[in-house]
Amino acid sequence: MNTLQLIYEGKSKRVYAKDEDTLVIEFKDDVTAIDGLVKAVAIGKGVLAARISAFFFKLLNDAGIKTHFIEYDGFRRIIVKKLEIIPVEVIVRNYAYGSLLRRLPIYKPLQKLEPPLLEFHYKDDDLHDPLVLEEDLIRTGILSEQELDFIKSVSLRVNDILTKFFESKKLKFVDVKLEFGKSRSGEILVADEISGDTFRVLDENGNHLDKEVFRRTKDAGLLLKAYLRLAEVVGVSVDGVFSSY
Amino acid sequence: MNTLQLIYEGKSKRVYAKDEDTLVIEFKDDVTAIDGLVKAVAIGKGVLAARISAFFFKLLNDAGIKTHFIEYDGFRRIIVKKLEIIPVEVIVRNYAYGSLLRRLPIYKPLQKLEPPLLEFHYKDDDLHDPLVLEEDLIRTGILSEQELDFIKSVSLRVNDILTKFFESKKLKFVDVKLEFGKSRSGEILVADEISGDTFRVLDENGNHLDKEVFRRTKDAGLLLKAYLRLAEVVGVSVDGVFSSY
Ligand SMILES: Nc1ncnc2c1ncn2[C@@H]1O[C@H](COP(=O)(O)OP(=O)(O)O)[C@@H](O)[C@H]1O
Ligand SMILES: Nc1ncnc2c1ncn2[C@@H]1O[C@H](COP(=O)(O)OP(=O)(O)O)[C@@H](O)[C@H]1O
Ligand SMILES: [Mg+2]
Ligand SMILES: [Mg+2]
Repeated sequence: MNTLQLIYEGKSKRVYAKDEDTLVIEFKDDVTAIDGLVKAVAIGKGVLAARISAFFFKLLNDAGIKTHFIEYDGFRRIIVKKLEIIPVEVIVRNYAYGSLLRRLPIYKPLQKLEPPLLEFHYKDDDLHDPLVLEEDLIRTGILSEQELDFIKSVSLRVNDILTKFFESKKLKFVDVKLEFGKSRSGEILVADEISGDTFRVLDENGNHLDKEVFRRTKDAGLLLKAYLRLAEVVGVSVDGVFSSY
Repeated sequence: MNTLQLIYEGKSKRVYAKDEDTLVIEFKDDVTAIDGLVKAVAIGKGVLAARISAFFFKLLNDAGIKTHFIEYDGFRRIIVKKLEIIPVEVIVRNYAYGSLLRRLPIYKPLQKLEPPLLEFHYKDDDLHDPLVLEEDLIRTGILSEQELDFIKSVSLRVNDILTKFFESKKLKFVDVKLEFGKSRSGEILVADEISGDTFRVLDENGNHLDKEVFRRTKDAGLLLKAYLRLAEVVGVSVDGVFSSY
């Protein structure tokens, strides 16, 4: 393997430069909650998150949605197009849950949101990713109106594809956080990851197949179990999950 | 004077029942900041706020905007139509300032917002009046789409009238907080107060003619001075301001 240059280490991933237009994203086994205040290690979680993310990016690519995903290395890395990340987290909500209920407790827990509700948060850890208005994004120049419209429509299409996928597995797709980035040619692509760290999925008994398990229990073992169930449902292999580089 | 029944005492006003359809709002001399954490008394401020509020409600009524205002008692009370208050604060912003800059520091201070930016906050002290999306108001049933559209258009018209008024006095109308309520017949009227407690106005030197003075200095004397200047500009009398009931 060539030596890769680490250019960014985040809470759950490392980003390496591969060449001018390509990055390697490596999924760590670290798990954090409450803005990084609670930390743990769940051996195997990185590989599972990489595999699940690769699966969903392929699903989206196959459906004609442009994403940064190029290929999966078979272990804990995905190769992606290098983008200029737009500092906005798009949350698509199918049911009222999590931070939405804390922000506005007059929503009923798991109230169906039809059509899905779109929320934008400014990506800034120090500000705790504040909720912003679409107008804020335009007025501050973060996005043009056309870019915003494009991101909204892609977000809804992505949500639609993921919702149908999980419906076919008899699971409830609650919500998902998406990131977008701009390529050198100005194209906007779906970026970052699509995994149990960035979406919430419930089975018919209300059990989570996602990171919510860790947010609630702070138990890395239970999180790993949820991720193993998620991998099984998604149909990705769990071979070699517990080995390390 | 008839005995009035006190039905609500808020941070800056008392509300009395007059008859089935009418309330009396009494402006206190109390001033608070930081969600009520800082408290002071500014003798004369209640009368000034009542007078200024009465002035602006008359201005709006004359412009054909429906408000709760019926009449001014000459001292610290206004007589208003009793409404069911909609638990939403509408903020109309002409320049980026205050909580907007704290929420999203990539706005430039006093950046012109043209057209004006509308913000909705859910009126709940315990939740610290959180920012909400228009969609939140619809999905939770707080407002119908038609009601929301109506409130938006009235808010912009009110802002337009106030902006023009202060422009004619060579002052910069920065932002304003509005409340609305529903009458028994289902009509939506502008409610609460319109004063230096609910709008921000700057002179050419950047001095405030509003409550911001108190938020910054915690000095009730300086606040009273700002209110006296505001009264002068608005053209309401300051006679009897320092007497009490
Ligand atoms: N295609 C891409 N090009 C450039 N940066 C990316 C791309 N995809 C994801 N990123 C960024 O890489 C980082 C991934 O690391 P992560 O641990 O999620 O960081 P963070 O703690 O900032 O969320 C994120 O900041 C994400 O925005
Ligand atoms: N026309 C009206 N009918 C009923 N309530 C009103 C009307 N106008 C204003 N109010 C309410 O009266 C209260 C005024 O007191 P205030 O000191 O501003 O209270 P708060 O501390 O709740 O802001 C507010 O809760 C306001 O919503
Ligand atoms: Mg991240
Ligand atoms: Mg009030």
